[in-house]
Amino acid sequence: MTAAIVSIGDELLIGQTVNTNASFIGEQLTLIGVNVQVVLTIADKEQDILNTLSLCQNKYQLVILTGGLGPTKDDITKTTLSKYFGVDLVSDEAVLSNVKSFFAHYKKEVQPVNYLQAQVPEGCTVLMNKVGTAPGMWMEKEDTVFVSLPGVPREMRYLTSKELVPRLQEKFKLPTIYSHNILTQGIGESYIAEQIKDVENDLPQGISLAYLPSRGMVKLRITGRGADFEEVRTAVEIQVDLIKSNIAEHVFGDNTDELAKVVGDLLVSKKGTLSVAESLTGGALGKEITSVSGASAYFLGGVISYHEDVKISELEVSPETVKDHTVVSEEVAVQMAKGSLIKFGSTYSIAATGLAGPNSDVSAKQIGTVFIAVANKDHVICQQFNFGGDRDGVVRRTVLAALNMLRLELM
Amino acid sequence: MTAAIVSIGDELLIGQTVNTNASFIGEQLTLIGVNVQVVLTIADKEQDILNTLSLCQNKYQLVILTGGLGPTKDDITKTTLSKYFGVDLVSDEAVLSNVKSFFAHYKKEVQPVNYLQAQVPEGCTVLMNKVGTAPGMWMEKEDTVFVSLPGVPREMRYLTSKELVPRLQEKFKLPTIYSHNILTQGIGESYIAEQIKDVENDLPQGISLAYLPSRGMVKLRITGRGADFEEVRTAVEIQVDLIKSNIAEHVFGDNTDELAKVVGDLLVSKKGTLSVAESLTGGALGKEITSVSGASAYFLGGVISYHEDVKISELEVSPETVKDHTVVSEEVAVQMAKGSLIKFGSTYSIAATGLAGPNSDVSAKQIGTVFIAVANKDHVICQQFNFGGDRDGVVRRTVLAALNMLRLELM
Repeated sequence: MTAAIVSIGDELLIGQTVNTNASFIGEQLTLIGVNVQVVLTIADKEQDILNTLSLCQNKYQLVILTGGLGPTKDDITKTTLSKYFGVDLVSDEAVLSNVKSFFAHYKKEVQPVNYLQAQVPEGCTVLMNKVGTAPGMWMEKEDTVFVSLPGVPREMRYLTSKELVPRLQEKFKLPTIYSHNILTQGIGESYIAEQIKDVENDLPQGISLAYLPSRGMVKLRITGRGADFEEVRTAVEIQVDLIKSNIAEHVFGDNTDELAKVVGDLLVSKKGTLSVAESLTGGALGKEITSVSGASAYFLGGVISYHEDVKISELEVSPETVKDHTVVSEEVAVQMAKGSLIKFGSTYSIAATGLAGPNSDVSAKQIGTVFIAVANKDHVICQQFNFGGDRDGVVRRTVLAALNMLRLELM
Repeated sequence: MTAAIVSIGDELLIGQTVNTNASFIGEQLTLIGVNVQVVLTIADKEQDILNTLSLCQNKYQLVILTGGLGPTKDDITKTTLSKYFGVDLVSDEAVLSNVKSFFAHYKKEVQPVNYLQAQVPEGCTVLMNKVGTAPGMWMEKEDTVFVSLPGVPREMRYLTSKELVPRLQEKFKLPTIYSHNILTQGIGESYIAEQIKDVENDLPQGISLAYLPSRGMVKLRITGRGADFEEVRTAVEIQVDLIKSNIAEHVFGDNTDELAKVVGDLLVSKKGTLSVAESLTGGALGKEITSVSGASAYFLGGVISYHEDVKISELEVSPETVKDHTVVSEEVAVQMAKGSLIKFGSTYSIAATGLAGPNSDVSAKQIGTVFIAVANKDHVICQQFNFGGDRDGVVRRTVLAALNMLRLELM
């Protein structure tokens, strides 16, 4: 089944609102095997909407419209739909009673304008909106099903999950799709491509691979399509294993895994505790670690040693070492990690020192130079990195590289 | 000038990535008076791209394409563009040298696949990408300008701001638009609306006001359109002053100001220094402060006292106070702020303790309960907040509220 998503709203075109509705609907439809081929974002203009409906008619089997269903003047989707279908708007009793009960619940009076919410194009199937007052509408014309949903994200999500998806699954024979994401850290897109080029060239029919890079990590998505779910799943997983075997040390997780959570789970399983000593990251490492709910089970705390003196006073970094090697050095990173381990009595510690830029006050070192040390009571490992990107990017890459070093140490 | 934005990428259709690029470009084009009429999000498929280019040809004066410029197999925008324009891909020396210097800078070897980055459709104008390896391309055909930009947000933003916008302004006669953003913290959208309703009702012809809320802050954008730039600017600034006078204490800056930078500038002007004591924020406050380039002039460092014991051992919080009031209390926040001031010898300190959720281990307090204390050698102020939102949202609101408390203290 092919689909188009039509997002209606001036606010989307002028960049005032990010179109998260389209990505939600795209994801939900993809999961049930509907092939979303286009997202069209258009203005609240009757002619634009009519043109878009015509354009999609018989080209896609399913057209999902969002937005323009509110009670105010700029909400014209409903009147435009009735015009396109050549029918009148009629009041729907069930919707009216839903609207009334909503206002009753919030102890507000129904305004005349709200009665308009109960009007729907004659002959449409109403998708009852139990979390708002604007109903969804299902209409069919020739080879295309048109479904109109409200633009309020919460209401759109409710109607998509509870009404749209079940109806599509019931009414249409949908194909089987299965995706698996491999999450990697510490290796660039082109290096991965080089290492898995044989697997990629030999991908079987019906299986595709996509590279989804973001700062400090690359996600590889392997997708299969076919008739039988188990067959598709098996075929995809064979490729997943092949790819993983080529880049094993860089794979930190699958699908929706978060690196900080993966590391946290390893710490829990080892009954370990963690502390951090942060310089260039300024707290970003602690923030990432504590973004995991339940981090208090293993994360004790840390020192943000932004100023050189704090490294010396709080982390027992030796002034001579700073003098001899500068604060951006392997020697200082190692002393910071050891100092943190002792101060907090944790079983593991991570320390990072480097230059995030854009200005450098350690003249001998380049912006993006970072030393990360990971320590436990037995030993300390330290690695040097040369990260690209802006200040924020260098910090982000440092955080992910640091967590990945600890992950490898824990494994 | 009319424009279409064409976002290319399967990941956008299947909902794996939210299309933030389209909203950024939509905003930037709108600000210079370009009328964005449609956003078309399509798959990485040659035929879909070709059809879309044809569809837009001569219908829009400007077509901005993003995505599909990477070095891997699923990146087909460049080859498709050369096909559409009927020209060959040729290696561009300036781009090749940019690619090489990028790899040299990061001390990495140029992979064979990276040489492809230097290929561009013959005759195109290259928009040099100084923050990445994929160049932007400007091509014209009949009545339409086509501009292809990379999909990596940072590179797309760089090329939009530094290359695309200036070239459009130089080449085309665009209408006069002037916008001024007022940035507020600590007051909700509807409260602002209530306080400035008289100004809003009396806005002169040609001037509009938009509320742009995000977590922990609301941006008010006042936009004017007209013929003469100075007239429009003056008319907008009169309204800006009127609005500001109604909500003065909540305004922390204008346009692209960042709260952390505003606070940093105040600290510099007062020759003050700062330290932090973070509990629920886990490093997020330090991260925000150090996101400002030059923060080392005033930020000394901090303690992430995630575990209760660290509050006691590192920040001199009294065990009795914890026992009597729990760690989420005004008393503990105040002691943390004082402890930080003493430990780091800073002139100011900020401390935050609270419950970010989703689980609470301090049974008497609700998720979202946060105490923030700001101290200097003379006194400590402390405020209680009850923030809404998820774990990440509570942390974000805490960071902004804390910085705003310090801002008000510094003023």
